[in-house]
Amino acid sequence: MRDLPFTFTLPLPEVIPSRKDNHIQRRLSALSGQFLDQEAFAKMLARDDELIYEVYEIKRPEVEGELIMGVSIVHPGKVGREFYMTKGHFHSVLETSEIYYCLRGEGYMVMETPEGETCVEALTPGKVLYVAPGWAHRSVCTSRQEDLVTFFAYPANAGHDYGTIERTGFRKLVLDGPGGPEIVDNPRATDAATS
Amino acid sequence: MRDLPFTFTLPLPEVIPSRKDNHIQRRLSALSGQFLDQEAFAKMLARDDELIYEVYEIKRPEVEGELIMGVSIVHPGKVGREFYMTKGHFHSVLETSEIYYCLRGEGYMVMETPEGETCVEALTPGKVLYVAPGWAHRSVCTSRQEDLVTFFAYPANAGHDYGTIERTGFRKLVLDGPGGPEIVDNPRATDAATS
Repeated sequence: MRDLPFTFTLPLPEVIPSRKDNHIQRRLSALSGQFLDQEAFAKMLARDDELIYEVYEIKRPEVEGELIMGVSIVHPGKVGREFYMTKGHFHSVLETSEIYYCLRGEGYMVMETPEGETCVEALTPGKVLYVAPGWAHRSVCTSRQEDLVTFFAYPANAGHDYGTIERTGFRKLVLDGPGGPEIVDNPRATDAATS
Repeated sequence: MRDLPFTFTLPLPEVIPSRKDNHIQRRLSALSGQFLDQEAFAKMLARDDELIYEVYEIKRPEVEGELIMGVSIVHPGKVGREFYMTKGHFHSVLETSEIYYCLRGEGYMVMETPEGETCVEALTPGKVLYVAPGWAHRSVCTSRQEDLVTFFAYPANAGHDYGTIERTGFRKLVLDGPGGPEIVDNPRATDAATS
């Protein structure tokens, strides 16, 4: 007997899937060391360990040929001038891709390769993003009041490598500026790369 | 230099993607032998070789780790009592899955395994369907006036096997009945299976 096909719905506006095998909640403390303004981070954390983002995962066997999918919800907010974001990761099997379909909100996908190439793509509802194999990726919510909600799918054998990004940070940051979101170089990532 | 990530949009209501590397158009003649009512099929074809469905594909290297995606548009209509549908196929690499996200219209995904299991799932906007590895799949549009539009993604090394379905047909058909769409056994598939 084979595994049966199955369906689930992504009901707007909350877009919490009707089926979920795993619900990950990442709070501010889980992003320790990732935001540029460490002082603002420490002050916020002393006040409350806020919920920054959530992921609803539909689990599948972690083998080639299967796809893992789910919904990512990044809440609106900032640490200093830096917008709330996910931890971001490479895939453990580096040469695997990922598809994002933006359902709600506005934001960016910040991406980079192990060789130091960078790419930042805007996300708005109806947009599909193809994260080509080899690119680390982090979602950033720049909506002022709305969640950034994306549906994602990736090869089930891809795995996650969070450690590389935790050590070095992404090379690009998304900060709030007078004219809206700005993509800027991460001074700490540059330090790490040249040290 | 790695392949760059990229984005495209799926603008409603037509949902023709802003990027497309390949546009497949399947007309009635391409579905020869697939509809139950062969007399109705012959009469329709003598009149006009109508467009039944279209696929906009975003191409990627056909290797493990990459994902091929696109938009499938099945137009409304019937051959006799049978709703317009895609040819349907197994993946050449049988143990590969596929994700469908329904964007518009109503219909069904008709599925079966080489061992003869069957599964038919309804598609409505906002619904995600996971076609588990090993299941042949065919989209059927049961909207009266609207296209059935789905966004799909599958492992890029999966390939397509149309021949098996062309020879035997699917075991289940979707016919128009007095109370709406009916899922019925395909008498010709049963003949083939028992002959």
